[in-house]
Amino acid sequence: MLSVFDHSSVRELRLNRPPANALSCELIVALREAIEVAAADGRRAVVLSGSPARFSGGLDVPLLLGYDHEKVATLWHEFYALLKSLAMSPLPIAAAITGHAPAGGTVLGLFCDYRFMAEGDFKIGLNEVQVGIPLPPVILGALRRLVGPRQAERLGVGGLLLSPAQALAAGLVDELAPPGEVIDRAIGWCQTLLDLPPGAMRSTRKLARADLAAWFERDLEPELQQVIAQWWAPETQKTLRALAERLGKKRVSTA
Amino acid sequence: MLSVFDHSSVRELRLNRPPANALSCELIVALREAIEVAAADGRRAVVLSGSPARFSGGLDVPLLLGYDHEKVATLWHEFYALLKSLAMSPLPIAAAITGHAPAGGTVLGLFCDYRFMAEGDFKIGLNEVQVGIPLPPVILGALRRLVGPRQAERLGVGGLLLSPAQALAAGLVDELAPPGEVIDRAIGWCQTLLDLPPGAMRSTRKLARADLAAWFERDLEPELQQVIAQWWAPETQKTLRALAERLGKKRVSTA
Amino acid sequence: MLSVFDHSSVRELRLNRPPANALSCELIVALREAIEVAAADGRRAVVLSGSPARFSGGLDVPLLLGYDHEKVATLWHEFYALLKSLAMSPLPIAAAITGHAPAGGTVLGLFCDYRFMAEGDFKIGLNEVQVGIPLPPVILGALRRLVGPRQAERLGVGGLLLSPAQALAAGLVDELAPPGEVIDRAIGWCQTLLDLPPGAMRSTRKLARADLAAWFERDLEPELQQVIAQWWAPETQKTLRALAERLGKKRVSTA
Repeated sequence: MLSVFDHSSVRELRLNRPPANALSCELIVALREAIEVAAADGRRAVVLSGSPARFSGGLDVPLLLGYDHEKVATLWHEFYALLKSLAMSPLPIAAAITGHAPAGGTVLGLFCDYRFMAEGDFKIGLNEVQVGIPLPPVILGALRRLVGPRQAERLGVGGLLLSPAQALAAGLVDELAPPGEVIDRAIGWCQTLLDLPPGAMRSTRKLARADLAAWFERDLEPELQQVIAQWWAPETQKTLRALAERLGKKRVSTA
Repeated sequence: MLSVFDHSSVRELRLNRPPANALSCELIVALREAIEVAAADGRRAVVLSGSPARFSGGLDVPLLLGYDHEKVATLWHEFYALLKSLAMSPLPIAAAITGHAPAGGTVLGLFCDYRFMAEGDFKIGLNEVQVGIPLPPVILGALRRLVGPRQAERLGVGGLLLSPAQALAAGLVDELAPPGEVIDRAIGWCQTLLDLPPGAMRSTRKLARADLAAWFERDLEPELQQVIAQWWAPETQKTLRALAERLGKKRVSTA
Repeated sequence: MLSVFDHSSVRELRLNRPPANALSCELIVALREAIEVAAADGRRAVVLSGSPARFSGGLDVPLLLGYDHEKVATLWHEFYALLKSLAMSPLPIAAAITGHAPAGGTVLGLFCDYRFMAEGDFKIGLNEVQVGIPLPPVILGALRRLVGPRQAERLGVGGLLLSPAQALAAGLVDELAPPGEVIDRAIGWCQTLLDLPPGAMRSTRKLARADLAAWFERDLEPELQQVIAQWWAPETQKTLRALAERLGKKRVSTA
């Protein structure tokens, strides 16, 4: 469910969980471990990519609706641990957003160093509110850091999904590329960074990302307890179940 | 001086104090009370609009120059109370900026959730400095939140008035619309928000606006005392009286 | 090495240290003193300009490589004192960026009130990382204030040099002008500010720049000690010496 490719010093972690690269608890754990192991393996930068036309569909809602209370609690703890590993990674991480990236798919990119997105009829955005999930504070905070308070309020409260061009204009992604080039562009971006004097680059990078890291140096347990409790709220459950039903019908009708 | 229209769940509060919808102490109080009563009346969102070509001329300077010390103090306390009711409203508020919106007209929009502005030969901006009034901290803070520190310094210190297109580019408004459509667009924006799962929307909205609300959870009395004292400063009085004279001549010459 | 011209109330301080207006310790001190004396001389605003096509090449690296430990320590203390005098100047300061402005050349502009840049084949940007110097916190902080955290991370970590058009798009400069007009435009900008009611302008300006001034109201000695120690780090010394060699060859080949 996660393919690993080494391009010289740059390790590509490619989400590979068909059909939509939706995030299960196991994929979340695997991705975090792969990020953590990259430096130990001597890699110097990471590219996080997905499948053609599908970067990641975010949390696998139909699967998660089958999780019990304990597994849901584990899932959210693991998801926050993944975000922490992205935010505090000693290696630069470029997101190669190869296609659709709603909700959790967008979230992954927020915590990377830089975001390339494939041009095309793809959607990206934090549509959590649309599916009944209030945006967790750490995620809204990371969004504000990228796009500013005004755009974060607009995008987050409305749960808006954007085209690649709209995402670029809002600052949600940094560059667009043709679908066939988006991974190479992300690798190239990493290599450019690695050509710099490494001490100066690392030290400036740490300073520039200190506010992002600071979120995870706090005790996030109270926030997590709130996020987990929210998952079981009647409105959220009802909205998620309606979503799962729509997804099920869509899958059947296109099968 | 304030007309109220209900469009299903959306209550429109239309400034109606000819000729320019300038803000008297009474209109300020009426607007705050109307905002506060909207939720109690079962409305779920608010649109703040004005007259064709004239949203609001801001504080009614010629009128205010006749106020004594006590009335001026009351006016500023009421104006801050109005801003607080906008910033902390439990209902989303869209501004339908139907035309000219200098100074206080712009300020109202800063504290709303979203701002539509009519295309046309209209002016918007915080030109307080031009008329001798230093920008109060809470207003500069709200401006920075929308447009960032660099633009806030440029716009605020220079007291600049912008065209609708310039305001859009700076982030002072969010969308432009033809004059005949600006109110409907604001109503439609509210309805889109109301179609979302309400708990998730409300909770994300509260989080996204917490920094704005935090301004009003502090003791603003020292700031208010400074703003009120400033009103009576010789430079401010002289500049305001020159402005009132120009407005008077203009009104006569166009009568 | 610094020419002074008075244009009515506006004092122009023109960097004049051929060939590239690189900053020596003496020029840094002279510039700070000139800024501090402008108000005492009755001037009401300052324009900081450079030579045609060359605003400032930043710190004079070949010269600085000949400095001993004591002189390097003095240089950085004086450079921070200069930035403080820009950030906390009682007079508005417009930068007229007449041409190339890498590294320290860009830094000067960050702390001014407003930045005009000459159109043309010029480069601007904080390329410190490219030459082995981690971006000092106060400089990254001023960059974030102008361009936001996302752009500051991109520009600062990558050590990117931009064209004037790219700098305008990123918010690193505020306006472009033809090379022959950039100084006049900066003077004109100052005059517009001086036409405003002075008390309201000054008071709003102080408020809008309070966050920038606050950096210098703290004890910056620990930060300075780190910046100075970094100068002597092997990677930094090696990278700076390679740069000085390239500059030397270039100068010989074009002589």
